[in-house]
Amino acid sequence: MNVIMDLCIVPIGVGVSLSEYVAACEDILNQPGLKTSLHPNGTSIEGEWDQVMAAVKACHEKVHGMGAPRIHTNIKLGTRTDREQSLEDKVNSVKEKML
Amino acid sequence: MNVIMDLCIVPIGVGVSLSEYVAACEDILNQPGLKTSLHPNGTSIEGEWDQVMAAVKACHEKVHGMGAPRIHTNIKLGTRTDREQSLEDKVNSVKEKML
Amino acid sequence: MNVIMDLCIVPIGVGVSLSEYVAACEDILNQPGLKTSLHPNGTSIEGEWDQVMAAVKACHEKVHGMGAPRIHTNIKLGTRTDREQSLEDKVNSVKEKML
Amino acid sequence: MNVIMDLCIVPIGVGVSLSEYVAACEDILNQPGLKTSLHPNGTSIEGEWDQVMAAVKACHEKVHGMGAPRIHTNIKLGTRTDREQSLEDKVNSVKEKML
Repeated sequence: MNVIMDLCIVPIGVGVSLSEYVAACEDILNQPGLKTSLHPNGTSIEGEWDQVMAAVKACHEKVHGMGAPRIHTNIKLGTRTDREQSLEDKVNSVKEKML
Repeated sequence: MNVIMDLCIVPIGVGVSLSEYVAACEDILNQPGLKTSLHPNGTSIEGEWDQVMAAVKACHEKVHGMGAPRIHTNIKLGTRTDREQSLEDKVNSVKEKML
Repeated sequence: MNVIMDLCIVPIGVGVSLSEYVAACEDILNQPGLKTSLHPNGTSIEGEWDQVMAAVKACHEKVHGMGAPRIHTNIKLGTRTDREQSLEDKVNSVKEKML
Repeated sequence: MNVIMDLCIVPIGVGVSLSEYVAACEDILNQPGLKTSLHPNGTSIEGEWDQVMAAVKACHEKVHGMGAPRIHTNIKLGTRTDREQSLEDKVNSVKEKML
């Protein structure tokens, strides 16, 4: 089962600057088999369900290992059985219909 | 690693009434090892990371199997290494501090 | 336009204990015209769109005023034109269909 | 108060193809005073709180007007008082710290 995920990891208890934690997660997510795209409020990820979920777990373990005592994460998950759809497809299908 | 999750599964392409799909997911989530609590906008789940994530996957497979061609799911994930915290603890710690 | 909201406010930069900030928001949300229900991962709110949104803004202003330099908030919004639905209706319609 | 929002609008009860509804919202969001950036799982928006929120309400009204009887929307909201931060700043601060 393929999944398109939106992932936003918020470390808590490490002050206001969170980018070094997010960058460490990006380094984890940039692995063979996953397509990713960083945006201002998270990261879009496309891949096989189990691999994507294993990467999310690795991110939590990494961020805790960097010293964050608490993590609040938001995920949006999209799966579909009617057809394949990539990250690019999703953006393009909207852009085609804009005025 | 224990996790507290908020799970909201939205089947797409099956009309406006979604409760039968959510109910089927509740039946999956009500398994030994997980604590759950249904609320108006989702389900709170407490358990070990891998078991919780396996349950989410089982929900997606079930809802697709019931005929939904597309699913949009929202998840909030909380993990912490500083102390244990249950679903009840989270509510109680807020209520104690209300006026 | 009526809305059912799920609101989760996460102050950043104030350490790991967030319950006093959430409690202050609960005190704001408990106002005439809104129905609310606290759960482990947020607060369910039912009311008229503009009043609900004004309350969310008041929560952000309050939490910043309490000293939080940064806030990360998650919202789920549900509106429908086909029929009225309350917080209780949403939970009951699922429970009726569980095994 | 400036806000950085991530907005994801999911019309329910109109089948599996949602891009025409999202495109109509993009046309609303592309207004003077707001900066926006479409990504695979939503739209990043930067602007003044009241203007951003008014745009979200206009999107709900538009999508209902196009025939969707029910809408499920996800929002992430970021506000901060310590410093100004743009959509581009958020991405760049992460990229600078990646390996």
